[in-house]
Amino acid sequence: MTTGGRFSYAGEWAVTATGTEDGLVTDEIRKNFASDNVSPACPAVMDAMMRANAGNVGSYGDDALSRSLNARFGEVFETEVAVFPVVTGTAANSLALSSLVAPYGAVLCDQSAHINNDEGGAPEFFMHGAKLVTLPSADGRMEAEALRTGLRVNAEGGILKPPIHALSLTQATEWGTVYAPKDLAALCEIAHEHDVPVHLDGSRLSNAIAHLGCTPAEATWKAGVDVLSFGGTKCGAMAAEAVVFFVNDRTRPVLKDFERRIKRSGHLWSKARFLSAQLLALLEDDLWLKNSAHANAMAQRIVEGLRRHAGAQLPFETQGNEVFVILPDRLVEELEAAGFGFYRWPTPEGVSGTLIRLVPSFHTRIEDVDALLAEIAA
Amino acid sequence: MTTGGRFSYAGEWAVTATGTEDGLVTDEIRKNFASDNVSPACPAVMDAMMRANAGNVGSYGDDALSRSLNARFGEVFETEVAVFPVVTGTAANSLALSSLVAPYGAVLCDQSAHINNDEGGAPEFFMHGAKLVTLPSADGRMEAEALRTGLRVNAEGGILKPPIHALSLTQATEWGTVYAPKDLAALCEIAHEHDVPVHLDGSRLSNAIAHLGCTPAEATWKAGVDVLSFGGTKCGAMAAEAVVFFVNDRTRPVLKDFERRIKRSGHLWSKARFLSAQLLALLEDDLWLKNSAHANAMAQRIVEGLRRHAGAQLPFETQGNEVFVILPDRLVEELEAAGFGFYRWPTPEGVSGTLIRLVPSFHTRIEDVDALLAEIAA
Amino acid sequence: MTTGGRFSYAGEWAVTATGTEDGLVTDEIRKNFASDNVSPACPAVMDAMMRANAGNVGSYGDDALSRSLNARFGEVFETEVAVFPVVTGTAANSLALSSLVAPYGAVLCDQSAHINNDEGGAPEFFMHGAKLVTLPSADGRMEAEALRTGLRVNAEGGILKPPIHALSLTQATEWGTVYAPKDLAALCEIAHEHDVPVHLDGSRLSNAIAHLGCTPAEATWKAGVDVLSFGGTKCGAMAAEAVVFFVNDRTRPVLKDFERRIKRSGHLWSKARFLSAQLLALLEDDLWLKNSAHANAMAQRIVEGLRRHAGAQLPFETQGNEVFVILPDRLVEELEAAGFGFYRWPTPEGVSGTLIRLVPSFHTRIEDVDALLAEIAA
Amino acid sequence: MTTGGRFSYAGEWAVTATGTEDGLVTDEIRKNFASDNVSPACPAVMDAMMRANAGNVGSYGDDALSRSLNARFGEVFETEVAVFPVVTGTAANSLALSSLVAPYGAVLCDQSAHINNDEGGAPEFFMHGAKLVTLPSADGRMEAEALRTGLRVNAEGGILKPPIHALSLTQATEWGTVYAPKDLAALCEIAHEHDVPVHLDGSRLSNAIAHLGCTPAEATWKAGVDVLSFGGTKCGAMAAEAVVFFVNDRTRPVLKDFERRIKRSGHLWSKARFLSAQLLALLEDDLWLKNSAHANAMAQRIVEGLRRHAGAQLPFETQGNEVFVILPDRLVEELEAAGFGFYRWPTPEGVSGTLIRLVPSFHTRIEDVDALLAEIAA
Repeated sequence: MTTGGRFSYAGEWAVTATGTEDGLVTDEIRKNFASDNVSPACPAVMDAMMRANAGNVGSYGDDALSRSLNARFGEVFETEVAVFPVVTGTAANSLALSSLVAPYGAVLCDQSAHINNDEGGAPEFFMHGAKLVTLPSADGRMEAEALRTGLRVNAEGGILKPPIHALSLTQATEWGTVYAPKDLAALCEIAHEHDVPVHLDGSRLSNAIAHLGCTPAEATWKAGVDVLSFGGTKCGAMAAEAVVFFVNDRTRPVLKDFERRIKRSGHLWSKARFLSAQLLALLEDDLWLKNSAHANAMAQRIVEGLRRHAGAQLPFETQGNEVFVILPDRLVEELEAAGFGFYRWPTPEGVSGTLIRLVPSFHTRIEDVDALLAEIAA
Repeated sequence: MTTGGRFSYAGEWAVTATGTEDGLVTDEIRKNFASDNVSPACPAVMDAMMRANAGNVGSYGDDALSRSLNARFGEVFETEVAVFPVVTGTAANSLALSSLVAPYGAVLCDQSAHINNDEGGAPEFFMHGAKLVTLPSADGRMEAEALRTGLRVNAEGGILKPPIHALSLTQATEWGTVYAPKDLAALCEIAHEHDVPVHLDGSRLSNAIAHLGCTPAEATWKAGVDVLSFGGTKCGAMAAEAVVFFVNDRTRPVLKDFERRIKRSGHLWSKARFLSAQLLALLEDDLWLKNSAHANAMAQRIVEGLRRHAGAQLPFETQGNEVFVILPDRLVEELEAAGFGFYRWPTPEGVSGTLIRLVPSFHTRIEDVDALLAEIAA
Repeated sequence: MTTGGRFSYAGEWAVTATGTEDGLVTDEIRKNFASDNVSPACPAVMDAMMRANAGNVGSYGDDALSRSLNARFGEVFETEVAVFPVVTGTAANSLALSSLVAPYGAVLCDQSAHINNDEGGAPEFFMHGAKLVTLPSADGRMEAEALRTGLRVNAEGGILKPPIHALSLTQATEWGTVYAPKDLAALCEIAHEHDVPVHLDGSRLSNAIAHLGCTPAEATWKAGVDVLSFGGTKCGAMAAEAVVFFVNDRTRPVLKDFERRIKRSGHLWSKARFLSAQLLALLEDDLWLKNSAHANAMAQRIVEGLRRHAGAQLPFETQGNEVFVILPDRLVEELEAAGFGFYRWPTPEGVSGTLIRLVPSFHTRIEDVDALLAEIAA
Repeated sequence: MTTGGRFSYAGEWAVTATGTEDGLVTDEIRKNFASDNVSPACPAVMDAMMRANAGNVGSYGDDALSRSLNARFGEVFETEVAVFPVVTGTAANSLALSSLVAPYGAVLCDQSAHINNDEGGAPEFFMHGAKLVTLPSADGRMEAEALRTGLRVNAEGGILKPPIHALSLTQATEWGTVYAPKDLAALCEIAHEHDVPVHLDGSRLSNAIAHLGCTPAEATWKAGVDVLSFGGTKCGAMAAEAVVFFVNDRTRPVLKDFERRIKRSGHLWSKARFLSAQLLALLEDDLWLKNSAHANAMAQRIVEGLRRHAGAQLPFETQGNEVFVILPDRLVEELEAAGFGFYRWPTPEGVSGTLIRLVPSFHTRIEDVDALLAEIAA
């Protein structure tokens, strides 16, 4: 499997499928573990959109659903928030950072960060060329000592180095690990000591909260997070994320004009009710957390199965819904031949085998996991 | 009515309504003529999204619906096209222009153009600061002589002026007028003589085609258009537009990397099937054109009613679905008091009265128009 | 004469001269009136650079000359200032504006402004795509009513229009006229009422001051100017301008990081002493003002000569050192044939003849002007 | 010593010196080894500027000196070139890269590269947010295998990673080492196989050529370099660098508009003759190479002295004019106390002592080096 390419116009009209499922009819066994975004939307989300599809309402967010977002998220996060819905995680991350970072500034992040590796340069676009400065880590979780060093080296560079204007952390991390709230709090404290606000890429925040068993507040602003990219698409929305500012002295100055940044990047929906409806549906009865708890459980089932396989090495602890595993090259090829979908990852040097990633979602069933494990065991 | 503001965080959670309809229940009489985007989505569009919501499929456009877009649009436009779905017209316009215009270049457009007046600076953002150079016109339709002058003055400026890299026209125009295909062709020919490609902002292209009674091909590439912002939202989609490149020597060089620009601006949907499904539903049985023909008819009904009113002045010929009318100040206030929704426009100097805009949509019914006219007559 | 083109690589090594003087030897009669920047540097400026060329000193401004700039300019302008030397007026204007205007914001300026017409899109580059919104005027001097209207229309646009973050005025204007301090003050007051700071493009500020006979303070901050592009090159420097912030509540927040913007645009000289030395030499004994008074006098001499010529029309009052005159087409061609250098300007519609610009400098002598006038009279 | 800070306005007019020499009078012993840019300009360069200061000439490069640049550099480099003078190395690097790299693209460079660490984010600004992707190396010289891996990993990322549009190498490197022409050629060949053009940051190219004893052609385009940042300031200019395109199929498309990028960034001098005069003076009689040979010899003298000191560790081979040495902390402090100027560098972990950098220039004399060595020996 390669990423994208469909829209990379190749000179012909018909593009052949790449071997992944293409089930606009429900598949018997769901073999696509490439990402949680290969799944459809959750029925409750679609229902909410259908209900929203009635009558004329004000556009650009001047509708009852959109007007209720601040209050509803405020209840869930137990504090005053300013919520701005957008359609992709890339937009949420990039917009959030652009409001904190001057074009001549920089963001500190882990070297594994999605903003650094997987967003096609979007953060740099939205921040008008501000720089991402990366720090190494063992498993995607930044360490306090690395953060201190990064801040110090940058400061010593004087005018030759763009000043650090934001710290961006990821929860759950890109390697499927989860920060303990106290570790998150330690990082935020260091950042705040340097007058640096903290952004959290919460594309899979729901998986982290489901793993930790804490409240959304404990996982975010109580640990020191200033602005959150709230992920909805991976846990069941059709396409809905949100930039959630926790209202404090660090965020208040940027709230007033934030909508302008959304408009200017083409992300302000005229029929905004349909974006808001999705987010509200996810919050209803903790649907976002329940969906993620299920995805996490499916990931654990995969891990348990892999542990029984002598040839499998698990380089990281699976705490959310992403499983990274090194399998013998031949087994990987056999899984692909059997129609299972997943991404190959760059395998660390000196390691024999191939590193792959398996990502179940709310839509993955026990029988789907067991079919995968049976293929691996065979 | 003011534009936006909902998401301009104002320090409190609850924002009170601004007097417009807020009908998540169907309203008896639909009084909101502020824009065609206050309407809901067309039932056929919602149905198509529901049908798409089944099974796992490849993400980022690697699904059967998305893969069919080039062929389907190719049938409708009777030529080879490369289609890139995005979620707003602002994104479509800005992305299309950014692929044609170097950051040190410029775009020629009419002074009334949406890209110049109503997109919060989005084109300049996506084009990295390239300049919009505007030309005056009487009714939103650029004239050949003005275009020639604009190109000449720019060229004479040498390195002091950013070179013109694209011509952007709007069909139907911002004043509700429609270019005849031969006039469009004359402009495109001048542009091409100067090696300048032509972009068409087709946010309301369907209204123009419905008015002209021509084919989509005649309204676009046969007149010389190189790239089209295809409008879907205003004629019935939930949120779906498309950048449609007519494949020729001017557009071919930019197709390969266009998807990268989409990704980099956060506009690449992971669950892209839901965007593609909307567009395909609009093309089915000419739904986009039928919806627009209805909206145009409702606009004509408004115009006819206004003509019977002594105090109404119609500064432009209504050819699409936008009606501009100057009414006595007091009448405008009364309409607002009666709950009708519309925008006030800057009234030309020396004119007595207030210029307002009325925009019916596919969702507007005869009884809605008649209620408006009755209020005006009263 | 066309502008630039030399560095537009044309495929060959040797580029032939375009007919202008090329006097690396002193010419008998100086016929080039194209701009004040065709002149060499003033001897006093070159001497100061030679004196600065001794010993090792700290780089990037950490030298005695650079360290003295704030104090020296503070004396001249009779207030606290922060001075940042740069090498071109385009850089000074663009950097100054970029510190005041967010990328999603806008600048109000006169339609004739150099930043809008003659800087190749530099302001938009430095401001990351922020927009220049232009206002019409009769002679390059913005009128208070136009400014009020511009601010109001922009505000009414809500999120659809980039908010005005700066007003940029030009003194002397691009048409060679000069604002009276009270008129400048009226404009600044309106801007400040809207929380909009004021930038002054002072590329020819010295000509304006020489015309007005006021103090530098009266011409700038006492009228309400917040930040000044101080022009040095046109009044005698080799290549030296400065961004001069008048320290107040509107400018103080941007001072701290301004040097970062200079560095990031490649405008921070390592051997900064040579830039500072030029500026200090201009301020010594009012050299900048004396040079400009001479240039103004030469311009008046041209005007007086032209007034005696029946075929000459002077569309604007010449108050600085720029003379705009409409001459019969044939006379213009004859002047060119006789080796005189000047630019043709776009001639207003309906006017017979050709609009040209004549710009004497500190280096222009009475005999040079008289030779020009004699040619015109002949 | 810290970098910059002078122009970081600190609220007062008088800034106290930081302990470095400030010799606008010639110092007895030149103790400032902080950088080659603390030196003045070479007398021959100043003389050339004085000679250029006569008569009116065309501006923006339309003068005899500027018109001769292509031919003169063509002789020196023995091939067809297009030369664009600018005032800083940061501008040269950033402009050169911006002409090769789309805003959505990326540059591969060594992790030690000046463009990545020391230019305040300028490359990202000029490239509109394009990304610098860094590769590790032992001593600043990129290795072929690292380059191949970098290109492969990027390509596998598909649309999630900005495509590599340029390779940027540095000669001499930031660690004072010098690529052998055959090693440079191997890297260029790999890049060209991937259709990636090669930029060379030649801020100290003259030091590299002086070390290698090869021709300028062998050090650049014969090894595969496509565009060069030619360094003039460090080897004797007041402030003059140049972007030198070697005209070939990879560079030809970008030549036409390159001057526009210069104008748009405020780097086009109106009195361009003074920039061109400096560059021509450096090329006269190989002055640039002679000056650098002297600086290299002074660096070798320092190295020889340090080798006799038991406490000194030299982590890299000194091949140009930069000496990196780890000295006991106390000795470093004593050198500072004695008035010697140099930068402290981040010392590698686990190493005892302090890493410093010493950079002699054309202006450094044997007695200056010996005074430094005597202090160290004492």
